[in-house]
Amino acid sequence: MKIGNQTIKLENTPKILHTSSMVGPKEMQGPLSMYFDAHTDDIFFGEKSFEKAESKLMKTCIDNLLSKVPIDKSKIDYIFAGDLLNQCISSGYAIRDTNIPFFGLYGACSTFCESLMLASLFVNAGYANKTVAATSSHFCSAERQFRMPLEHGNQLSSTAQCTVTGTGAAIVTTKDISIASPYITYVTPGKIVDMGITDMANMGAAMAPAAYSTISTHLNDTKRSVNYYDAIVTGDLGKLGSEILVDLFNKEGIDISKVHKDCGTLIYDLENQDVKMGGSGCGCMASVFSSYFFEQLKTKKLNKILIVATGALMSPVACQQGESIPSIAHAIAIENEV
Amino acid sequence: MKIGNQTIKLENTPKILHTSSMVGPKEMQGPLSMYFDAHTDDIFFGEKSFEKAESKLMKTCIDNLLSKVPIDKSKIDYIFAGDLLNQCISSGYAIRDTNIPFFGLYGACSTFCESLMLASLFVNAGYANKTVAATSSHFCSAERQFRMPLEHGNQLSSTAQCTVTGTGAAIVTTKDISIASPYITYVTPGKIVDMGITDMANMGAAMAPAAYSTISTHLNDTKRSVNYYDAIVTGDLGKLGSEILVDLFNKEGIDISKVHKDCGTLIYDLENQDVKMGGSGCGCMASVFSSYFFEQLKTKKLNKILIVATGALMSPVACQQGESIPSIAHAIAIENEV
Repeated sequence: MKIGNQTIKLENTPKILHTSSMVGPKEMQGPLSMYFDAHTDDIFFGEKSFEKAESKLMKTCIDNLLSKVPIDKSKIDYIFAGDLLNQCISSGYAIRDTNIPFFGLYGACSTFCESLMLASLFVNAGYANKTVAATSSHFCSAERQFRMPLEHGNQLSSTAQCTVTGTGAAIVTTKDISIASPYITYVTPGKIVDMGITDMANMGAAMAPAAYSTISTHLNDTKRSVNYYDAIVTGDLGKLGSEILVDLFNKEGIDISKVHKDCGTLIYDLENQDVKMGGSGCGCMASVFSSYFFEQLKTKKLNKILIVATGALMSPVACQQGESIPSIAHAIAIENEV
Repeated sequence: MKIGNQTIKLENTPKILHTSSMVGPKEMQGPLSMYFDAHTDDIFFGEKSFEKAESKLMKTCIDNLLSKVPIDKSKIDYIFAGDLLNQCISSGYAIRDTNIPFFGLYGACSTFCESLMLASLFVNAGYANKTVAATSSHFCSAERQFRMPLEHGNQLSSTAQCTVTGTGAAIVTTKDISIASPYITYVTPGKIVDMGITDMANMGAAMAPAAYSTISTHLNDTKRSVNYYDAIVTGDLGKLGSEILVDLFNKEGIDISKVHKDCGTLIYDLENQDVKMGGSGCGCMASVFSSYFFEQLKTKKLNKILIVATGALMSPVACQQGESIPSIAHAIAIENEV
């Protein structure tokens, strides 16, 4: 049921039955290493190209997810997935052999919440009993496609973010499954917000206003305050984007800083790893939510969280043609009690 | 409600209240010219790049759609859209200023049905009262991105298809609106099918098995026969792909040829326009359904149709790396009586 301006209440409160995550070597050097299910020390993951490596990461992550639950792959009704690569080939090739009906999505780094929203809305509506949401990104395939080939050895801008080599997947089921798991209670799909930022090396600044728009709308629609949530988790605003988000709420007299977390700043040690403003990419929130935050929910260290994946919908071609960066953020409320 | 293996029955039968279409000069020289709402003779549509022209096509089409119905833009709950360009920039920039919450999709040329499926499923579930689905493609932006810059002047392969410069959009509403319009009764999201085709200039052959898979599954799930429908309309199999589809059904002892139509062969005069196997692209089914087929439904010349958009999920990078072409098809049953 739609409530307010943009939010949908999931009256049948689907469950996130389980999650799976997998990352690359740099992410394993970061502070969340103990939470990831799986990792590879080989950035090529045994493949001949970065694109094939990324696709294999997602495929492995989905396989790992399905091995964790007592559910046969053939019982998954639909899968929702996307990534950053042109024509979303990481997802397409990862899902090719699963024999599961597939919805391909593109929301840039917001895609993890876009896929998890649709996966839970399908279960809530009775269109499916079991759905999977998955996204991935890979530092090397993203650098080649969006910026420069790695061989170029260019310096990072001080406002740049580092695309996470990682993937995450979640299985959503009806609430009648007896395993205790967090529920999805509300989703707030976002509108595009474009404040005129044209610097592709400053995505945090481009995306922060979109995160602000979606979080504000979600709180208005649900009549909740910032402090209702134990954590409001953005996808990959990074250090600078997070500061801008806090500032935007401060202007409204709201202090979001105590509950705000950002997957892009959590996944790396910003002091000691050369990642500038932090992590980004479809795989950033996917891997951090599917490891650290899901564990925090399962162990009741957190009970009510709002996850808000943020995406910058530009392309190198659009930016070369002088366009600014349209951004979007999608929010999902996940709670242990309903 | 899910029925059978892959199909969802839309018990609340949302309506396609209206559609809008717009095409370029070559499409206006084809046999469907009288059905399109709008067209441009300028392949640049007054813009400085093909990408900006494509985005403006989609934006104009959505504006035209909303001008046809007595509904304020602010009452549209969600918009579902996608295109072929990297990072789906045609959709992103077209929708940027609409202030409507946005789901970005990528299903290659299958995206029109993917967006219309989700738009109707949201209305059916009560998540929305009014949704819009839109897709676009542009010959010149697609050639540059997927094949060669036009300046290269390369010859087309004999099995090639010509990307349609066109766009289509539909508005889906709850059935209680008093205007007589066709209903969406069933959707069948597709699985990826990859029969090992590696020739990017033979997409019809790559996509035909996916169309066969989805149509067969739809008929099994709904317990309908081919002849239940007045027309089974594929997106852009083209002449060769259509022949393969007919052959695949013939092997099962089913004659689909009498009801099968393909938007890619309808939109051009294959004898006299240099388009080889016919049209393709996200804008092909979008513009042909939103003009010709919607008119046929409204005037009751057709009363029961199944539209099946087909997509090839490869990328130039994947094909250069030796990958075959994964394909997908999504089907939607549209009927005047429920």
